[in-house]
Amino acid sequence: MLGVCYYPEHWPESWWEKDARRMRALGISHVRIGEFAWSRLEPTRGSFDFGWLDRAIDTLAAAGLKVVLGTPTATPPKWLMDEYPEIAPVDEQGRVRGFGSRRHYTFSSDVWWKESERIVEVVAKRYGEHPGIVGWQTDNEYGCHDTSLSWGAEDLKAFRRWLRLRYQSAQQLNEAWGSVFWSMEVQSFEDVVLPNLTVTETNPAVRLDFWRFHSDQIAAYDRMQCDIIRKHSPNRWITHNFMGFVNDFDHWKVAENLDLASWDSYPIGFVEKFPFSEEERVRWAETSHPDIAAFHHDLYRGVGNGRFWIMEQQPGPVNWAPWNPVPKPGMVRLWSWEGLAHGAEVVSYFRWRQAPFAQEQMHAGLNLPGLDELSPGGKEAEIVGREIETVGPLPEAAQAPVAIVYDYESYWSAVIQPQGKDFRYEELAFRWYEAVRKLGLDVDFVRPGQSLKGYKLVLVPCLMHVSDVALAAFEQADGTVLFGPRTGSRDRHFRIPANLPPGPIGDLTGVRVTQVASLRPGLRASLAGAVNGQATRWREHIETQSDATVVATFEDGAPALVSKGRYLYLACWADGALLGNLMSYLASSLDLSTTAIPDFIRLRRAGKLTFAFNYGPDAWTIPGEQDFVLGEQEIAPFSLSAWK
Amino acid sequence: MLGVCYYPEHWPESWWEKDARRMRALGISHVRIGEFAWSRLEPTRGSFDFGWLDRAIDTLAAAGLKVVLGTPTATPPKWLMDEYPEIAPVDEQGRVRGFGSRRHYTFSSDVWWKESERIVEVVAKRYGEHPGIVGWQTDNEYGCHDTSLSWGAEDLKAFRRWLRLRYQSAQQLNEAWGSVFWSMEVQSFEDVVLPNLTVTETNPAVRLDFWRFHSDQIAAYDRMQCDIIRKHSPNRWITHNFMGFVNDFDHWKVAENLDLASWDSYPIGFVEKFPFSEEERVRWAETSHPDIAAFHHDLYRGVGNGRFWIMEQQPGPVNWAPWNPVPKPGMVRLWSWEGLAHGAEVVSYFRWRQAPFAQEQMHAGLNLPGLDELSPGGKEAEIVGREIETVGPLPEAAQAPVAIVYDYESYWSAVIQPQGKDFRYEELAFRWYEAVRKLGLDVDFVRPGQSLKGYKLVLVPCLMHVSDVALAAFEQADGTVLFGPRTGSRDRHFRIPANLPPGPIGDLTGVRVTQVASLRPGLRASLAGAVNGQATRWREHIETQSDATVVATFEDGAPALVSKGRYLYLACWADGALLGNLMSYLASSLDLSTTAIPDFIRLRRAGKLTFAFNYGPDAWTIPGEQDFVLGEQEIAPFSLSAWK
Amino acid sequence: MLGVCYYPEHWPESWWEKDARRMRALGISHVRIGEFAWSRLEPTRGSFDFGWLDRAIDTLAAAGLKVVLGTPTATPPKWLMDEYPEIAPVDEQGRVRGFGSRRHYTFSSDVWWKESERIVEVVAKRYGEHPGIVGWQTDNEYGCHDTSLSWGAEDLKAFRRWLRLRYQSAQQLNEAWGSVFWSMEVQSFEDVVLPNLTVTETNPAVRLDFWRFHSDQIAAYDRMQCDIIRKHSPNRWITHNFMGFVNDFDHWKVAENLDLASWDSYPIGFVEKFPFSEEERVRWAETSHPDIAAFHHDLYRGVGNGRFWIMEQQPGPVNWAPWNPVPKPGMVRLWSWEGLAHGAEVVSYFRWRQAPFAQEQMHAGLNLPGLDELSPGGKEAEIVGREIETVGPLPEAAQAPVAIVYDYESYWSAVIQPQGKDFRYEELAFRWYEAVRKLGLDVDFVRPGQSLKGYKLVLVPCLMHVSDVALAAFEQADGTVLFGPRTGSRDRHFRIPANLPPGPIGDLTGVRVTQVASLRPGLRASLAGAVNGQATRWREHIETQSDATVVATFEDGAPALVSKGRYLYLACWADGALLGNLMSYLASSLDLSTTAIPDFIRLRRAGKLTFAFNYGPDAWTIPGEQDFVLGEQEIAPFSLSAWK
Repeated sequence: MLGVCYYPEHWPESWWEKDARRMRALGISHVRIGEFAWSRLEPTRGSFDFGWLDRAIDTLAAAGLKVVLGTPTATPPKWLMDEYPEIAPVDEQGRVRGFGSRRHYTFSSDVWWKESERIVEVVAKRYGEHPGIVGWQTDNEYGCHDTSLSWGAEDLKAFRRWLRLRYQSAQQLNEAWGSVFWSMEVQSFEDVVLPNLTVTETNPAVRLDFWRFHSDQIAAYDRMQCDIIRKHSPNRWITHNFMGFVNDFDHWKVAENLDLASWDSYPIGFVEKFPFSEEERVRWAETSHPDIAAFHHDLYRGVGNGRFWIMEQQPGPVNWAPWNPVPKPGMVRLWSWEGLAHGAEVVSYFRWRQAPFAQEQMHAGLNLPGLDELSPGGKEAEIVGREIETVGPLPEAAQAPVAIVYDYESYWSAVIQPQGKDFRYEELAFRWYEAVRKLGLDVDFVRPGQSLKGYKLVLVPCLMHVSDVALAAFEQADGTVLFGPRTGSRDRHFRIPANLPPGPIGDLTGVRVTQVASLRPGLRASLAGAVNGQATRWREHIETQSDATVVATFEDGAPALVSKGRYLYLACWADGALLGNLMSYLASSLDLSTTAIPDFIRLRRAGKLTFAFNYGPDAWTIPGEQDFVLGEQEIAPFSLSAWK
Repeated sequence: MLGVCYYPEHWPESWWEKDARRMRALGISHVRIGEFAWSRLEPTRGSFDFGWLDRAIDTLAAAGLKVVLGTPTATPPKWLMDEYPEIAPVDEQGRVRGFGSRRHYTFSSDVWWKESERIVEVVAKRYGEHPGIVGWQTDNEYGCHDTSLSWGAEDLKAFRRWLRLRYQSAQQLNEAWGSVFWSMEVQSFEDVVLPNLTVTETNPAVRLDFWRFHSDQIAAYDRMQCDIIRKHSPNRWITHNFMGFVNDFDHWKVAENLDLASWDSYPIGFVEKFPFSEEERVRWAETSHPDIAAFHHDLYRGVGNGRFWIMEQQPGPVNWAPWNPVPKPGMVRLWSWEGLAHGAEVVSYFRWRQAPFAQEQMHAGLNLPGLDELSPGGKEAEIVGREIETVGPLPEAAQAPVAIVYDYESYWSAVIQPQGKDFRYEELAFRWYEAVRKLGLDVDFVRPGQSLKGYKLVLVPCLMHVSDVALAAFEQADGTVLFGPRTGSRDRHFRIPANLPPGPIGDLTGVRVTQVASLRPGLRASLAGAVNGQATRWREHIETQSDATVVATFEDGAPALVSKGRYLYLACWADGALLGNLMSYLASSLDLSTTAIPDFIRLRRAGKLTFAFNYGPDAWTIPGEQDFVLGEQEIAPFSLSAWK
Repeated sequence: MLGVCYYPEHWPESWWEKDARRMRALGISHVRIGEFAWSRLEPTRGSFDFGWLDRAIDTLAAAGLKVVLGTPTATPPKWLMDEYPEIAPVDEQGRVRGFGSRRHYTFSSDVWWKESERIVEVVAKRYGEHPGIVGWQTDNEYGCHDTSLSWGAEDLKAFRRWLRLRYQSAQQLNEAWGSVFWSMEVQSFEDVVLPNLTVTETNPAVRLDFWRFHSDQIAAYDRMQCDIIRKHSPNRWITHNFMGFVNDFDHWKVAENLDLASWDSYPIGFVEKFPFSEEERVRWAETSHPDIAAFHHDLYRGVGNGRFWIMEQQPGPVNWAPWNPVPKPGMVRLWSWEGLAHGAEVVSYFRWRQAPFAQEQMHAGLNLPGLDELSPGGKEAEIVGREIETVGPLPEAAQAPVAIVYDYESYWSAVIQPQGKDFRYEELAFRWYEAVRKLGLDVDFVRPGQSLKGYKLVLVPCLMHVSDVALAAFEQADGTVLFGPRTGSRDRHFRIPANLPPGPIGDLTGVRVTQVASLRPGLRASLAGAVNGQATRWREHIETQSDATVVATFEDGAPALVSKGRYLYLACWADGALLGNLMSYLASSLDLSTTAIPDFIRLRRAGKLTFAFNYGPDAWTIPGEQDFVLGEQEIAPFSLSAWK
């Protein structure tokens, strides 16, 4: 199904009906509105103006559109910021981040919680049972613009409160953090300070707790909104629109509160934001890298416990990347179908019409700026709308053969203590995903501790702290489990485990890490054995237990890849060739059915359907004879085919 | 004529007479003094010491030198900053920029205006009718060290005042800015905040207004000084010394107040500051790029309505660039003559003698540090002095065949909303200028809206907002007008025009822009047709009216260069080859007489004289037989020739 | 002798005895403790807990270890920072650098001095005559984490006090600083402001005085600690552990207070911090550059007036560089012996056992994290312990043939006024050292003004201000003296000398500098004559006196290397080839006995012993027949040999 994001407050009321009609004509069934409209709903304290929103919802619903209503908390209005300046977040350098854009609040502010409760309640009460409303979006893009963490007085107060609950006594806090080091001991929780603006680096254990604290706050804040909405809006679902490559809070935890996950998919903008090579950035500039969108579809399908939307789908050039090219003709259609193939219930474009004013005026919409005229992306959406009608509803996604264990704390930990400047968790996870996808395999993302039953291959690119539940899930896994570098290298207080890394999985894998080397650009270590290739960035020096098998060694003879039973440990950051080699080796050992595809093609199954997506400038001929429901044997550049 | 900048307060009084005598011997007729001497004129509040300046002016005048007196407002003394700390400017990060260097004031401070009026009046009264004084310089280098904009409480107060005049009501402000976006609406002008320190980018319309506001203040501040001076100093002219590559305020507007423009020419320092390629920076390190000085001569001749000086001419190595080489022998002479050939009334060297102390001690003078001994640059100035006597006064500059429309607001707009990281207005304008100059053509700069009569070719590299007067001037132009990318892409409130870009010139040129792509390094688009070459950085997707002609297309067949009547629209950022090709094509279509010159030679006409300047390490032989007034047929490296 | 750094407060008391026993077994004789333990010694104001330290010292002493006790002033505890927030330093941007790591104090705070006196007195009184204590370390790593300078209110107060003593009157201050420039004059010392947060650069003379002021404070602060310790701890020596490549204060001056110097040697970490080329960084990533450790050994032998320790020796990978590789097997042994060969009395490893918690948990120790198990580096230390027993005590270092005059003020001056972005004093000095060492020569470092008697060759890479005593030492030198660029280019008030650079040595060397050029990357000047090669980064234009000899010229014929009697002046920054050529030329002119060694081999004499160190991956055969006391004729990679 298709959706669209719409801002009635941006256009004359006389346009609404015509807009709604044209949406329906395009095959759009859902429309998201309202998430930035606080200043229109409550222009001054307590004086509400619901008339316009009433009429907008009525107009949309009358046209047959299903409305998703956003709570307007991402944009507290000026009068509120004036009343309570402490709502504003503070950056790591101590500067207040003021009014004038969006997300200018800290999750730590008590008064902000009260005000959020108030506005969410007012909106939920008024529209909760409106027949046009089918679901809710809480806030908008938590964490966008680095707003997960804040470093002000409110944050310190809330952090101390959180620490008191976690540690009970200052003594236990000192013990957990190793505060004796450098005389950092505190006598009470009131002695704790923010881990910023210090002379040199702060204790990584403190920084990790500070991150956890903020992540917990986001989850609690979202639950607060959900609770209010559920009270007033029975039988509607709730989602939040997550982002791509934002790892600053634990999405698994936030999604516990939600009925389904959704995310905002801007495949091209991300090409400049993710640490790709210059060569990759040029190659994929106008199509996006073939794994960016899919990675997130699979991740958020996991986060949403099987259910997700694309709440915002890029429909053309955007405004926020360092460079903003026009997508290749066909890509808007391709991305839309790719989302559906990965299980998205709705692909909702951002936005109906390009705004000719304010911050996002260079962001394309389905219609040209201020006009009733489809943009190139709008015309592709129209095609998708017609094709969806032809193809009919897609089957639900089946369990994939491969699972990736994805962990937000490990991201935080690697940011806090990279040890080598280019050790980036999200890059590691992405490259492992890419290597598997290049074999034509489907992938699920799972939370540490979640059941791994049914997966033939479980990939754990890096799980810094292996909790008891995570360990239990590994022990109970059916398939082969491959652990990557730094897994198990920290306990829950960010200390090196007493038995040395990989700590809890030392016995499972039969290895012990005695030294680690981060490798600057130009330093590499070759691997040879059952798999070949090169280590870059990171290499561990490990010892093996007698019942472990050395699958590959470094050039100096030291073990590099070790197996014990169905568990493997990889003691390095693998480059692309090594990763490809390793995943092929595992797939073939496990009899996983792979497909030989060029590196610009990706496959995805949806029930009995197989989709193939062509991200490259050359056509590709699908091998074998197929029963096509979309496209044909030869997939044109920037197009797709699907067959039974 | 030659001039020099002199600081009597830096040297023992016993040296002054000898210095004046030696200046005259060098052929110097004008001397600028006084612009940093506030702490000597008024060491403490209200206790003035004019004796030394009286004697200095008398001494210089007695030697036959004409004195240009600077108002000392660029360096408010310590006691004044202590009395009124609010005078200090504030940077975009919120940090006060304090005492200890220069330009430590914000134009927004009311008390600063009062103090400026007071000191200017005192100085103008005392010296206004001194027979030795022939002219005045207001302040010094507005905008130097990023001092056009300031972000403090005083600035906010003044900004609100400015907005009230511009918009009358908060409602009109909200409407103009599109504040409904992200709930940024205000209820009154007191709700407006500074567009800095926000969570993410601020509204570009606000930033543009903030820039306009500061630019307006500078113009008003300068007019205030001029009004006072004119009252007390009849029959003297007033100038301000502008800078190279400073675009932070509207120089056209400031110059409305002035009798003539002047600028400070540091050709070598700019090689490191302008976004040249590394290759260019190495090539031109010791000579400067052949178009840097000339670009500004032509620009300030326009800004000064035909009259300009070089107030400060680099006489050797300077102190402020990342690297500061010694100019190639000959360059000080070459630069001096080039200034004169482009119409400079006076070339005034900075400074008479190198100071052995303080911030600029590594800045060369005509004399060695603290000595009565000519530096290498001083010796070249001496030669220029003798040559001027031989050649006699140069004729006035005639109207050039080519005009470039130069617009400061477009610079601000591109900084505020680059959309592609390397879309830089000043670079675009410079490269268009360079391409024309390589054909041996002379160029004038004109203000948007100024008459374009008499120009065979009008170049508009980028005019983001085409005002009514600008449009009228284009409509009334005699010659061919070439518009570059983004022209007409914004209305006066920084909104996308209702008829889409290029807005007001859409009908003139027959094009409509539906999508724009910024192209990262590595992305290019080839053009073919009547002109060939490559687009980089920026490409627009345009539609053409039926009566428009597609002169060149992109490789995908879309129109790239379109003409309609005598108007052309270029839908991309052109690389060097394409620009050269395009300008040749236009010159030949228009029967402009070009000259085949190597890329290190530049030509310039001054009445019946033609000058040729050699920026390269190889000699060049002038074609044809000529009647030389300077130099000869073969121009040696770093030298020049001139003929009738 | 070997030592180790130990933190009894980090481990259960029950481990101490076993740890001490194992240290002795490893051949360790000295142990440093206590320098970060304030929060354990005085958990709250006035309530001391010495029990644990009494027992720790007793336990170590009982095992036969000699204890070096550190004063705990590098880590003021939280309660003290709460009592006196003004102790915290302020960075150049005006941000308070707060509690949470270490070195969070400014030397300018009066109350900090009182508190330091108090805690040092308490500790010195209690342990001053303990028979286990053989020496003291004051504080820890002055200047680490950019803590030499601070920019707060306390600093301004102290700076004004210091200026009053130096200049007596505001008039003399204005005169010395050239404050008339830009109206920066002050009426009293209360008018002086900090040289930061100005609109553009501040007066370099002010910045130099600000740096001197801080450096003087550090020397005075250290003397204060020494005086207290000496009073209470007779017959013990005092040292401070300096750092590598920290030049922010005058180490010569601080060391006047000390009995011996010591430094913390992290050869591999420095490879990323020093401005090496990328190629060098890759080549030496796992061994360190062969001159980094030796440079500092020789420097600190000089600073310590012949006596020095390595207080902290890297025993494996560290945690603080951008990348942290594992040293090649053998390097810990090599570094240890290299220290001894250069005269270190003790090589003390940091640290006994890797901490599994807090900021340095990724820093290797002699034992694995939290375990009683030697790390790879620990095993190499064990070998060194045994070898020391075999070889016996090394003879004292003899005077080297070559001296380098090393000056901290010149470092500050070049930072304050680089004039070319890559003019770095420390790099210049290092490259001159490297060139001499590649000839197999030993080097001493001497303080400007110190006697140069007995040296055949004196190198003065750059001495910006040549004081009267420095000049006298040059005049009385026995050997040849080579001066590098910018020497003598400033007087003591950072003014250009009246007779132009090189000022006081103009007559000695027969040169006068009239212009200087800093050369951007890509600009070079070739030299030809008795020496050949290329100048990069910096070139001076000089005139020579009639009795001076031009030894080499630039390609344009100007003098580049000039000699007059036994004094030479080099008018450029020499690249590697030119430096090698020049040093060979000088060595051969002076009949210095050099050795042909590959660039990965270094030699060092200790009395009758000669050591050779192999930093490369290839073996090297020592020429001639030798009487080996360590190793053999062929030195394996990452190993060493020593012979009589």
